[in-house]
Order: sequence, then C-alpha cells, then structure tokens
Amino acid sequence: DFLEALDEVKPAFGAVIESLETYRLHGMIDYGARYQHLLSSCRTLQARSSENTPLVTCLLEGPAGTGKTALAASLAIESGFPFVKVVSAEAMVGYSEQAKCSQIAKVFDDAYKSPLSVIVLDDIERLLEYVAIGPRFSNTVLQTLLVLLKKQPPQQRKLFVVGTTSLGMVMQEMELAAAFNVALHVPRLSQPEQKSVLQQLGAFSGTDLDIAVAELPDLEVPLKRLLLLLDLARQGQPEEERVVSLTRWSQVLRDLNG
Amino acid sequence: DFLEALDEVKPAFGAVIESLETYRLHGMIDYGARYQHLLSSCRTLQARSSENTPLVTCLLEGPAGTGKTALAASLAIESGFPFVKVVSAEAMVGYSEQAKCSQIAKVFDDAYKSPLSVIVLDDIERLLEYVAIGPRFSNTVLQTLLVLLKKQPPQQRKLFVVGTTSLGMVMQEMELAAAFNVALHVPRLSQPEQKSVLQQLGAFSGTDLDIAVAELPDLEVPLKRLLLLLDLARQGQPEEERVVSLTRWSQVLRDLNG
Amino acid sequence: DFLEALDEVKPAFGAVIESLETYRLHGMIDYGARYQHLLSSCRTLQARSSENTPLVTCLLEGPAGTGKTALAASLAIESGFPFVKVVSAEAMVGYSEQAKCSQIAKVFDDAYKSPLSVIVLDDIERLLEYVAIGPRFSNTVLQTLLVLLKKQPPQQRKLFVVGTTSLGMVMQEMELAAAFNVALHVPRLSQPEQKSVLQQLGAFSGTDLDIAVAELPDLEVPLKRLLLLLDLARQGQPEEERVVSLTRWSQVLRDLNG
Amino acid sequence: DFLEALDEVKPAFGAVIESLETYRLHGMIDYGARYQHLLSSCRTLQARSSENTPLVTCLLEGPAGTGKTALAASLAIESGFPFVKVVSAEAMVGYSEQAKCSQIAKVFDDAYKSPLSVIVLDDIERLLEYVAIGPRFSNTVLQTLLVLLKKQPPQQRKLFVVGTTSLGMVMQEMELAAAFNVALHVPRLSQPEQKSVLQQLGAFSGTDLDIAVAELPDLEVPLKRLLLLLDLARQGQPEEERVVSLTRWSQVLRDLNG
Amino acid sequence: DFLEALDEVKPAFGAVIESLETYRLHGMIDYGARYQHLLSSCRTLQARSSENTPLVTCLLEGPAGTGKTALAASLAIESGFPFVKVVSAEAMVGYSEQAKCSQIAKVFDDAYKSPLSVIVLDDIERLLEYVAIGPRFSNTVLQTLLVLLKKQPPQQRKLFVVGTTSLGMVMQEMELAAAFNVALHVPRLSQPEQKSVLQQLGAFSGTDLDIAVAELPDLEVPLKRLLLLLDLARQGQPEEERVVSLTRWSQVLRDLNG
Amino acid sequence: DFLEALDEVKPAFGAVIESLETYRLHGMIDYGARYQHLLSSCRTLQARSSENTPLVTCLLEGPAGTGKTALAASLAIESGFPFVKVVSAEAMVGYSEQAKCSQIAKVFDDAYKSPLSVIVLDDIERLLEYVAIGPRFSNTVLQTLLVLLKKQPPQQRKLFVVGTTSLGMVMQEMELAAAFNVALHVPRLSQPEQKSVLQQLGAFSGTDLDIAVAELPDLEVPLKRLLLLLDLARQGQPEEERVVSLTRWSQVLRDLNG
Ligand SMILES: Nc1ncnc2c1ncn2[C@@H]1O[C@H](COP(=O)(O)OP(=O)(O)OP(=O)(O)O)[C@@H](O)[C@H]1O
Ligand SMILES: Nc1ncnc2c1ncn2[C@@H]1O[C@H](COP(=O)(O)OP(=O)(O)OP(=O)(O)O)[C@@H](O)[C@H]1O
Ligand SMILES: Nc1ncnc2c1ncn2[C@@H]1O[C@H](COP(=O)(O)OP(=O)(O)OP(=O)(O)O)[C@@H](O)[C@H]1O
Ligand SMILES: Nc1ncnc2c1ncn2[C@@H]1O[C@H](COP(=O)(O)OP(=O)(O)OP(=O)(O)O)[C@@H](O)[C@H]1O
Ligand SMILES: Nc1ncnc2c1ncn2[C@@H]1O[C@H](COP(=O)(O)OP(=O)(O)OP(=O)(O)O)[C@@H](O)[C@H]1O
Ligand SMILES: Nc1ncnc2c1ncn2[C@@H]1O[C@H](COP(=O)(O)OP(=O)(O)OP(=O)(O)O)[C@@H](O)[C@H]1O
Ligand SMILES: [Mg+2]
Ligand SMILES: [Mg+2]
Ligand SMILES: [Mg+2]
Ligand SMILES: [Mg+2]
Ligand SMILES: [Mg+2]
Ligand SMILES: [Mg+2]
Repeated sequence: DFLEALDEVKPAFGAVIESLETYRLHGMIDYGARYQHLLSSCRTLQARSSENTPLVTCLLEGPAGTGKTALAASLAIESGFPFVKVVSAEAMVGYSEQAKCSQIAKVFDDAYKSPLSVIVLDDIERLLEYVAIGPRFSNTVLQTLLVLLKKQPPQQRKLFVVGTTSLGMVMQEMELAAAFNVALHVPRLSQPEQKSVLQQLGAFSGTDLDIAVAELPDLEVPLKRLLLLLDLARQGQPEEERVVSLTRWSQVLRDLNG
Repeated sequence: DFLEALDEVKPAFGAVIESLETYRLHGMIDYGARYQHLLSSCRTLQARSSENTPLVTCLLEGPAGTGKTALAASLAIESGFPFVKVVSAEAMVGYSEQAKCSQIAKVFDDAYKSPLSVIVLDDIERLLEYVAIGPRFSNTVLQTLLVLLKKQPPQQRKLFVVGTTSLGMVMQEMELAAAFNVALHVPRLSQPEQKSVLQQLGAFSGTDLDIAVAELPDLEVPLKRLLLLLDLARQGQPEEERVVSLTRWSQVLRDLNG
Repeated sequence: DFLEALDEVKPAFGAVIESLETYRLHGMIDYGARYQHLLSSCRTLQARSSENTPLVTCLLEGPAGTGKTALAASLAIESGFPFVKVVSAEAMVGYSEQAKCSQIAKVFDDAYKSPLSVIVLDDIERLLEYVAIGPRFSNTVLQTLLVLLKKQPPQQRKLFVVGTTSLGMVMQEMELAAAFNVALHVPRLSQPEQKSVLQQLGAFSGTDLDIAVAELPDLEVPLKRLLLLLDLARQGQPEEERVVSLTRWSQVLRDLNG
Repeated sequence: DFLEALDEVKPAFGAVIESLETYRLHGMIDYGARYQHLLSSCRTLQARSSENTPLVTCLLEGPAGTGKTALAASLAIESGFPFVKVVSAEAMVGYSEQAKCSQIAKVFDDAYKSPLSVIVLDDIERLLEYVAIGPRFSNTVLQTLLVLLKKQPPQQRKLFVVGTTSLGMVMQEMELAAAFNVALHVPRLSQPEQKSVLQQLGAFSGTDLDIAVAELPDLEVPLKRLLLLLDLARQGQPEEERVVSLTRWSQVLRDLNG
Repeated sequence: DFLEALDEVKPAFGAVIESLETYRLHGMIDYGARYQHLLSSCRTLQARSSENTPLVTCLLEGPAGTGKTALAASLAIESGFPFVKVVSAEAMVGYSEQAKCSQIAKVFDDAYKSPLSVIVLDDIERLLEYVAIGPRFSNTVLQTLLVLLKKQPPQQRKLFVVGTTSLGMVMQEMELAAAFNVALHVPRLSQPEQKSVLQQLGAFSGTDLDIAVAELPDLEVPLKRLLLLLDLARQGQPEEERVVSLTRWSQVLRDLNG
Repeated sequence: DFLEALDEVKPAFGAVIESLETYRLHGMIDYGARYQHLLSSCRTLQARSSENTPLVTCLLEGPAGTGKTALAASLAIESGFPFVKVVSAEAMVGYSEQAKCSQIAKVFDDAYKSPLSVIVLDDIERLLEYVAIGPRFSNTVLQTLLVLLKKQPPQQRKLFVVGTTSLGMVMQEMELAAAFNVALHVPRLSQPEQKSVLQQLGAFSGTDLDIAVAELPDLEVPLKRLLLLLDLARQGQPEEERVVSLTRWSQVLRDLNG
C-alpha cells in the first residue's frame, strides 16, 4: 500500500522534492539486513492509516553520521505525499525561541491543510538548542514539539512525522522519545557492512578491500565518516579513477587520526 | 442524582459536546471491573454537591495512553451541565506563561457564571510545560492552578473540575495532587482486560485471541497502544474485514518493537 | 479586654465582615481542649497592646484543611477592629510579583491609617508562589513580608497580623516564622475530636458513631476533609435528613480512597 | 574625645534625631559589663579620625532582637555629627535593586558633603533581600555596599558607618563582614542580665524576680523578646501598676510557647 | 594540490592577508617533526574537496600559547582562497549574544558566495564567553556554531573552517569537537624543540644553549611564552645584539617566576 | 631603562598623577627584601618592550590590605607614561554590566592612542561583581577583560596593564590569572616587617617596639591594618606627638578584637 500511495497522489511541489535530494548527496546505499529492516518498519508506519489513527510518528535515533537525515528524507520523497516539509535548525539560525516555535507550529498548520502530509523534524537536539553542560535547551521548543506530536489532525487529514536525533537517551529523559509512536535505531556500520559499502563504491581493488577495512581505527564506523575518508583519499586523482591505493588510504587515516 | 442532573439541565452548547467527542475517537470500551470502579468513584464526586461544598475536584492519574482524557471527556459529556470546557495545551501553543494563566483564569471565571459547570484540565504536565530535566516548569501556571483549585465559586454556583496527568509523582511533589479532593488511578490493561478489548473489537478469530495477547511484548499495555497496533495491523485490508491474521499481527509487533 | 475592645469600636465596614463569613462556610465547631487553647493564645496576643508594642504578629501553622483560615477569619471578625483585611492569592491571580508587593504594601499602609487594625495574610505559601521543586518562590514578596512584619506602625496606631500556612518548616527556613512574634500549631483532629464534631453535626445515630470514626482510613483527619466526606455522604438525601447510614458512609470512603 | 565632638558640632537636623528615637522605643537599659564593653569599642572607633583614616566602619552582629538597631541609633544620636542617616529596607519596600542602589549611593554622596557624618546600614540582610533558601540575595546591592564601604571620602571629610545584621556567618561568606574595619557581637541576655533588666523596669516584686527569670523557657533571651513578654503580661492592668504577678507571667509564657 | 590551489586563485583582498600577518608577529618557526605532521594533516584536509564533500572542518586544540592562532592564520594565508575571514571575539567586545550570532552567520553567508573560502573561528571559548565556574557560556553562540559547522554550502561552493581552542575537553562536552571533521592537537614544546627554536633565533652562544633550556622552570613550554621570555631578556640591549647572557636570562626567569 | 623612560616622556596629565596619590595616603614604606623583590619584578616587566611584545600584563595578588593598590598606583606614577588610567569599581557604582564593559573598553581604546600607556585594573573582583556564594559574577565583564588582556595594541603602541586582586584562587578558576603574563604575590607583613614599619613611623619608643609587635593578635598582619591600628591609637594626642604608649595600644587592640 506504500506503493499504491505513490501511484495515487502526484507530488504538488517538485522543487521541494529536488531540494530534499540535497540531504542524500551520496545516494542511498543498501548496506544489508539492518538497513532493510529499518526500511520495512518505516513503511509499515507510513502506510495510509485508518480513520481512527490520523497521526503516526516515528523517531530515527542513532550515533552521529549514521544516515538518519538521509533516511528521513528518503521516506519523505518516496511517500509521494502532496505536502512534505523538513523542519531544520539550519533555516532558523538566530531565531528566538518564540520565532522557532511559531515557525514549527506553522509547518504543522500547513500540513493539516493537505490530505496527506510528511513532516521531518531533523536533528531534534539542534531544534531544542540542547547542550549537555547544564544541561540546557529550549523548553519552549520542547513543549511545542510534545504538544504537536500528540495533537490529532483535523478530520480527513493524515500526517506522518519522522524525527531524527543522535541523543536517544536525552530524548527519553525529556519524554520526547515516548511522544513518538515508535523509535527506530539507526546503527553504525559493522565491518561486513563497511565492506559492502566500499565494494559498491568500487573503492578498492578486490584484494585490498579487507585490508582497507581492517585499517580503520574503530570496529564500527558511521556511514558518513566512511564516505568522507574515501572522498579525502580520492583527492587529487582524476574523477574517473575510482580505486584508491592502500598507501593513500593509510596516509589519510594517519593524518586524520593523528 | 447524576441521572437526575442529566434530565434537568439541557446542554446549552451542543457544538461543544460534539467537539468533546474527538477526545474519544475509538469510543469507550468497558474493559472490566477496574473501569467500572473508576466510573462509580467519578459519579459519587460529580453528584450535585451541597450548599457547603460548591467545588469538587478530581485528578485522573495514570501512565501514557491509558484513557485518562477520554474518561474525563466522557464525564463532561455525561454531566449534561450547561458549561463544559476542556483546558488543553493544544489550544495554547506558543502562548506566554502569562497568556496561559489568563486563559485558564478566564475559563474559571466563565464557569462561575453558570449554575453547574465542568472544567477538564487536560494533560496538566503540558499546561505546566513540565520537563524532568531540571526539572523545569511554569511556576506561574502552577500557582494559578493551585489557587483556582481551592477558590470557592460564588454562591449558588457548583463547579466540578477533572484533571488528567501521567506524572502522578510530580503532581505530588508540586502539591498539586493534594490540591484535588481526590486522585484516581487509571491503569494499563492487564492480559484479561486486553483480551476483553480485542474480543469486543472482533480483532481475532476465537482461537487466535489468546495467542495474539501472548505475543504482546509487555504484560501490561496502555489501551491507546493496543488500539494503535490493531489499526496498523488492519492496514490494507478492506474496512469490512475486521479480523486480523496472526501473521500480520506478528509482523506489526516485530516492525514496531524491533 | 478582648471583649472590651469589641464594645468600644464599631466595625466601620459591615460588608467586609459579611464577606469574611465566606471563610467559615461550615461555621466554627468547638472540637475540644486543643481548640480552646488556640483561641486563648490568640486572644492574649490580640489584646490591645501598650504604647511600646504597637505591632503584634501571629502565625497559624498546620496541615492542609485543619481550619487555619477559618480561625484567622474568626479572630478578625471577633476583634471588632475598624480595619480588617484578608490578603489572599485568590484576589491576585496573574499579578506580577511587583503588583503583588504593592498590593500587600497598600493594605499595610491603609491599616496604618486606622487606630486598630487586623490583617490576615492567608496561605502565605501561595502569596509567595512557593513550590517545593527547586524550591522556587517569589523572593520579592518574601522580602516585602519580612520588612512589613517588623515595621512599627505610626504613633497611636495598633496592628494585629495573623498569617496562615501549611508549610511550617519552609516558613522557618525563610526566617518568616521567626519574623512573627509567635507561631501556633493548628492540628489534625484526633479520633475523640472527630467523634465530637460528627456528634455535634448529628451525622450518625448513637451506635453508628464509633464505627463511622473507626472506618476512616487515617487516625488523624483534617477537619475540612471530615466535613467534605460527610457532605458527599449526605448527597441525594433530603436536606432535613441529617443522619447518614453506615452503608453510604462506607461507599463514599471506598470511592474516594480507592 | 567622643564628648569633645559632641561639644563642638551642633546637630543641624533636630528632627532627624527625633525620628532616630523611634528606633529605641523602650529606651536604653544598661544590662551590665557586656553592654559597657560594646559601648567602649564603638566609641574608640567613632572618635574623630586622623587625616589618613577618614573612614571608619563597624558591624554590629548578633541574634534577632538583641538591640543592634537601638545601639546603632544611639551611637548616631550621641555622635552629634551634623549628618546622620539610617539606610533601612523599610523605606524601600518595592524598590527595584537598581533603585535601592542609587538610594544607598545617594546617602553616601550626601554624607561626603558634610565634614562629619554617620550612616547606619540597618538590617543589612534585608537591604540585600537575603533568603537562606538558594541562597538568594541582591548581588547588585551587595556590590554597592562592598564598594562604598571601602571608598575614601573626599579630603577633609570624615565618615563613620555602622551596620547591623543578625546573619554574621552569611556576612562573612559574602566578604561583607571583612569589609568593615571591625565586627562587634551583640549577645542575647544571660540570666543575670535578664534579672538586671526586669529589676530596672520594676517588673516583679523582689521575691518574685528569680522565679520569673527561671520560668523563661530558654536560658538566653533576646532583650526585645523580654520586653515584649513583659508588655503582654502588663496588658489590662492600669498603666501606673508596673508590677506583674507570677500567675499572669506564667499564663503569657504558656500561651506564647504552646 | 595545496600548492596548485595557491597558483590558480589570486587572493582578492590583499589587505586582508596583510592583517592576517598580525596573528604571527614572531613568524613561523619550524620546531620539528610534530610541527610538520600538523602541517601535513591540515593540508590533506584543506585540499580542494570533491563535489560530495563541499565542507571540511578542522579544530586546532592545545594549551595556551602553543601557536594555534598563528597556525590557523598561516593556513588561511597559504590557501590563496579568494575569501578568507577570521572570526574573533576581539572584534565583538560588548556585542550581545544575538549580535555575535548574526555577525558569525554573516561571515558564513559571505563565504557561501565565494567558490573557495576559509573561515578561522579563533579562540572558540571566547566566542562562547565560556567560564569554568558554573560553567557559563553563550548557548546561543554555541548552537549557531553547531548548526553552521554542519550546514552544507550551496552547490559549487567549497568551504574550509579552522577553529582554535585551548579547552579541548570542554569542546568535547559541548559536542563541538565532534562537530568538526577532525581535531588536531597543538603541543607545548619539548626541550629539544625549545632548543631548536632558541637556536634558530640566535638567542644564546653555543655553549650557553643547553644551560638556558635547563633553567626554564617547566619541562614543556608554550612557544609564545618562550618568545616572551626571550623578548624581556633582550630588553635594553641594542637591537642588533641578538645573543642574551645567561645572567640576564636567569634574572628574568627569577623575576617572573619568583 | 625604567629611568630612561621617565626622562624621555613628560606626563601629559599632571592632575591625573596627583589623583593617583590618593591611592597611597600613607606613602610607600620600604618594609624589606620582599618589597624590593616585588618592585624589581614589576620593573622588569614595565620596561619598554620590543616591537614583537607590545603588550605586557601583570597581576598583583594578595590578601586584603597588603598594599596592592598602592603598589599599582606607584608603578603607574613612576612609569612617567603619558597615558595612565585606573579602572575602579568606585567610579562605576550602579552601572549596568554593559555600561561597565564599554567603560573598560573605552579606557583600552584611549590607551591605544598613546605611544606608551599604563592601565591599572583595581580590585578585579569588584569589577566582576564577584561574590563567593553561588558563586556569582558578571561574565560579561570577565569576558571583556579576558579579550582585552590578550588583544595586541596597534603598531607602534606599547601598553602595560597591572591588575590587583585579593582572590588569587578565583582568578585562576576564571582563567583570568593565566591571562596575565605574570602573577606576583603581595604578602601580609611578618613580625620583622611589622617592626620595620612601626620603627620608620616612630610609633613606639625603642624598648616598647618588640612588646607592641608581640601584642598583635595575629603573627602576620596586613600593612593597611597595622596603619589603621596606629592611627586609632594616636587619636586624641597632639599631632606632633608620634609615640604611642603601650597602654593605649593595648586598649585599642582589646576594643577592636573583642
Ligand atoms: N543507506 C543509507 N542510509 C543513509 N544514508 C546513506 C545511505 N547510503 C548512503 N548514504 C549517504 O550517507 C550520508 C548520511 O548522512 P546523514 O547526514 O543522513 O547522516 P546523519 O545520521 O543524519 O548525520 P548527523 O548525525 O550528523 O545528523 C548521506 O550523504 C547519504 O547520501
Ligand atoms: N474505557 C475506555 N477508557 C478510556 N478510553 C477508551 C476506553 N475505551 C476506548 N477508549 C479509547 O482509548 C483512547 C484513549 O486515549 P486517551 O487520549 O484518552 O488516553 P490518555 O490516557 O489521555 O493518553 P495520554 O497519556 O497520551 O494523554 C481513546 O481513543 C478512547 O476513545
Ligand atoms: N473549630 C474550627 N476551626 C476551624 N474551622 C472550622 C472549625 N469548625 C468548623 N470549621 C470549618 O472547617 C473549615 C476549615 O477550612 P479552612 O479553609 O479554614 O482550612 P485551612 O486549614 O485554611 O485549609 P487549607 O490548608 O486548605 O488552607 C471551614 O469551612 C470552617 O467553617
Ligand atoms: N541596652 C540596650 N541595647 C539595645 N536596645 C535596648 C537596650 N535597652 C533597651 N533596649 C530596647 O530594646 C529594643 C531593641 O530592639 P532592636 O530593634 O534594636 O533589636 P535588634 O537587635 O535590632 O532586632 P532585630 O534583630 O529584629 O533587628 C529597643 O526597643 C530598645 O529601646
Ligand atoms: N611554528 C609555529 N607555530 C605557531 N606559532 C609560531 C610558530 N613559530 C613562531 N610562532 C609564533 O608564536 C606565536 C604563537 O602565538 P599564538 O597567539 O598563535 O598562540 P595561541 O596558541 O593562539 O595562543 P592562545 O592560546 O593564547 O590563543 C606567534 O607570535 C607566532 O608568530
Ligand atoms: N610598601 C608599601 N606598599 C604598599 N602600600 C604601602 C606601602 N607602604 C605604605 N603603604 C600604604 O599602605 C596602604 C595600602 O593600602 P592599599 O589600599 O593599597 O591595600 P590593598 O592591598 O589594595 O587593599 P585591598 O585588599 O583592601 O584592596 C596605603 O595607604 C599605602 O599608602
Ligand atoms: Mg542528520
Ligand atoms: Mg490524555
Ligand atoms: Mg487556608
Ligand atoms: Mg534591627
Ligand atoms: Mg590563539
Ligand atoms: Mg586595593
């Protein structure tokens, strides 16, 4: 029925979808079973819900750089829903707490006007201006989110909200995790998953691949970090040359992990 | 005499009562003895009080999703009182503390003008903008509630106040629980109660029912959660088909409890 | 000399005294020796003081619902002083701290213009907007009270101040208890005192009385709670019928103490 | 030389001195050696200081009601200095911190215009709006006092500052005690001192005196408390009758100490 | 390719580069392997990045006076990028938090308009107004930095951000260290490194050098401190005379570390 | 070279220097080796610095009354620099934090216009409005000082900054001590130093001197305290009579140390 949805509703704002693409500059690489389970869970939730359940909410939680924002953006794109909006701190630098709240409330109000909507609350800790020292955060923004995540849309309206955060524990203390219908964990890549990604990107010649993975200083690596290391290693070689030498790889790892 | 009241006074604002219905979208299911005891206690309190006790106040306290708001709304609807009002944070997103207080005070002032009134203070922790980290909350709103919950209505006026909260302990620390005449606990459903609800909703064929209940990951389940799981499981099947297969049920539970 | 005072000065504002009556809706019941000792102490203090002691202050401190406010109002009424005023948070909902302070200061200023005055500072914790979490309170209001409780009235003026609070310990930490000349404890009712009250109100037939008292869940009961339980038990029976059956009594207790 | 000073300068503001009298409504009773040592120390300091020491400051510190304010007022009166001013929270109820500071600074500025000045900073904890919970206080006022207590008057000007406080320890933590040149302790009365005071006031017939003192619930009593008890005991007897009966004394003690 | 960059793009604002020189008044002295490793790592990062990695960020972290700012300025100068800007608290003394944030945001906005940009965030703890007591800091500035350090530049734009701080641990607690792609440690000088620096500056005659180094009170010395000591020791001798006597050296050390 | 400086530059503002004299009303007494070492260190720093070190900063730290302010003022006077300014809380009573900061920044800006400048930051804890309870202080002022103490003057300008404080430890926690190039300790006087001072002032006849010193209640005494005690002891004797009797000395000590 997720695919059905795609067929039925034509996205009203092509441009918006284009800009959503900037959240997944490196594309979406299928790194294995854990990624597929994530996708399946999201799709169960996103399915057009019944009369009695007009609001479904889902939190993507995991360490920095594991691909939460890219996944949320992908769900929004795939939904084909006519209203799709990312709420992000980037667009509200320098806003007062009050201004942030009314901006967020406005997005929800706009969503209530569309029969089918997706809202992505990206990097919730930044929306909340959270810092662990104190800790400090905007309670005004927090309360706004807590209320909006429980408020039923008007009749005949369906809303799907996806949040992302790298501070799962903090979201729990704030009762924000519990305010979502479900919280899904987005993991760092295990070594087999790293290998899968590097292979799909043609980063190393066959025999080098295992060595390259073994040289990474940590067992688990966030996907975004892996892609950065590869990008830096590829610096200075012609764009069509995709394979990286182990020497260059070692040098980059040494330079960046001092 | 509760029924007497219903007979005597015609609700002045039919529309208001209609909107109260949105607080119990899934109707009210009688899940057994604990629900009936709750109802009985509420009705003892709500009974039209004597000259000397013009104000009666009651706090419904229990875990998230146990049906507190729906119960409070039901009491308000059944009362048949001419003035019925829900005070909820949803209607005050972005209000300043001061604005919230004067809004709340206004509701009480309006109530004092009607001979018989019910006020529902829904989700008191949200009215207070409470967060456990700190903890932080609006003392201004708290003090307003503490004063209004003790203030006697003018002569010849009767007022019944019902509050709901999922933070019973916090309400006690704030002396807000003690400010109510009585606090009633609204529980999560036990397994027999879950079974009763699923049966009434025709969710499973007779033999599947016990297995379906046993598969739920927790022994006790909030009523609202149970209804959400059922709704998601029913996705994609024709509306008239009410029975859910155990296969579909298992998949939904696995997807959401990953 | 307390009675002398009553004779000498005619209350200037009859209406004020009438409104003071609303603080003792259930009248004043003499529940025994402890109540009489309280009265005697208050009267010693209230006695018109000498040239050198123009200000006498007294704090009534005790658990919720023990009758502090009613006692303070009674002292004010009995004093027959031409200026009598209750300072209460009820009249200042939504005021800023500054506004509260100037309101309080104004009451004292008005009192200084009358030869004999009584001021009741009711529910001091509410005037202070006190909450135990933090704790938080208005230091501005606190300082105003601390200063006014020590400030000598002008020559030829006598002032008697009665405060009420259910947070005796907190008042001590704030040095507010010590700012009063004396602090008197208003207790919960013991079982003999409960019996005395219920008997005076004709609540039970002779043989039922002891059983009714024994059924109360706590040994000590605040007077106001006892009166509420009786009121709820009497619901639905004709007003002239004052005696309550033990069955009804048990049901009310069960409903409210679930 | 203290007396010399008295001779040389005529007080410019008789009225001011009169109002200073209200700080010692019960007069000054010489209760023995400890009082005389206090007086002698104050007079050493107050002596007109040399060119190089134009500012002398003294803190009177002791429990509530021990006579600090009366002593400070007496020093100011006896000084005969042309500029004498009491800085007290009573005159600044409801002032903002800023307003308090500029009021205090103004008093010092005025003092700098007079060749010889005394400033009494009465009840410094109230000027600071101090409360032990927190603790909280006005740092703005504190800093103003810390600066003014060290600031040298202009040439040819001498200034004597007397502060009073019942929170000696707190003043030390704030470095306010150390900001004074000297801190003198004003004690509660010992039993011989109590006896001396009651005798001078003709409160008891010779044989009763020891019994009356022994009946006081505490060994040490603040002077002001002793005078209050006596005043209440004398209530209702003709003004010329100064002797109090032991019966009346006992009743007052019982009423006030519950 | 770092050098390539230098060749390709001509700095648009010569004046800016000149002013960058004031951050390295004592020039850049190559004190050995650790300095060269630092340079190499920085250059790997600074290399013109690929389409998919338009933003690279690097934190220079180390004790006070180790040369972080001079190094950051050097990287900016060497980059030859057309847009180069230092964000420093010196230029924002007395700004409000809001003003600081919009100033910082403006610098990033300007950078987004240039194809290749370098931004130096100098002394981040000062930008944040950090103090360890509390601790206190501007969360508004912190959140602005956290957002801007993750925000992707528009298409076709590359941005290199270098931060400096002497509070590495604090930056980690604030998740600010993790917000940079890499954090490099800038160390205090070891004794061989001190010797190398003093030798290059011709500070001591050959035989004196080891003694001079041995006399320094600490084993490790920040580069800037070493240069200050040398400057003070050279005071009063003709500018062309670069060699310092051990006697003078000892006196300066004694005077300053007394 | 310190003397050279004195020769070269004529003070532009004679009046300023005169007012600096008020900071050393009792003159400067050479109390021995520790004082001379202090002077020598200060002069090493103050020496006109090289091109590369246009800013030198020094913190004088020690207990209350040890002569820090007088020493700083002396350095400023002796420098003969054309711009000399004392930044003191006395001149900013009642200023807001912002006003204090811009006042301080203005002094530095003015200094940058003079080729050679001295700024005295007197009693830094007062500039910061520091109080140990909390602790509390103005972070705005602190950050301003931290920035200004590191900011390089423009080319061809030399600036010498001397700070004074009695809270060395606090200055360290705030990283303010480390922001100065050097911190020098100003001590309380030892008994030989006390003797030296009293002798130079002709306070006691030869044989009395040792007894007078031995009678002081503490082994170490702040210089300013010693001078106060002497001043009080000399009260009332003709100005030309400088010798104090041991009797008078004992009485003053007893009166002030109760
Ligand atoms: N299967 C995948 N899932 C998510 N991202 C992927 C996947 N495959 C490739 N990517 C790429 O990995 C990057 C993930 O970065 P993204 O910003 O989404 O991570 P994040 O977890 O949101 O990081 P942060 O914690 O910093 O917010 C994107 O550039 C995306 O295109
Ligand atoms: N017996 C019942 N009591 C309460 N609610 C019931 C009952 N039977 C069915 N329901 C349905 O269950 C849902 C209860 O949700 P409700 O919002 O009232 O829970 P809640 O405890 O207020 O949740 P929250 O803690 O999130 O505020 C409603 O949709 C209501 O229609
Ligand atoms: N002897 C009595 N003393 C006090 N109140 C009495 C007495 N007899 C009957 N009453 C009634 O009991 C009630 C006491 O309630 P009151 O509001 O004074 O209690 P309270 O201690 O002030 O409560 P709270 O702690 O909530 O402020 C009043 O309605 C009063 O009429
Ligand atoms: N020797 C004395 N010293 C001080 N006060 C005396 C003395 N003899 C009599 N008195 C009287 O005792 C009273 C002392 O009260 P006072 O207000 O000065 O006490 P206090 O210590 O300032 O109290 P508080 O701690 O409440 O400020 C005055 O009324 C004064 O007239
Ligand atoms: N190899 C080098 N690296 C860095 N600085 C050098 C080097 N050689 C000489 N210097 C000089 O050393 C000084 C370093 O001072 P700089 O202000 O950069 O230190 P910093 O670590 O930023 O200090 P702070 O912690 O106070 O901010 C500069 O004057 C610079 O010219
Ligand atoms: N050698 C000396 N050094 C410093 N002050 C001296 C010396 N000899 C005499 N004095 C006098 O001692 C006094 C020192 O007081 P000063 O106010 O400088 O002390 P301080 O340490 O700044 O005190 P505070 O801690 O209260 O700020 C001045 O009056 C000064 O004239
Ligand atoms: Mg993200
Ligand atoms: Mg609810
Ligand atoms: Mg009350
Ligand atoms: Mg006093
Ligand atoms: Mg730096
Ligand atoms: Mg000083």
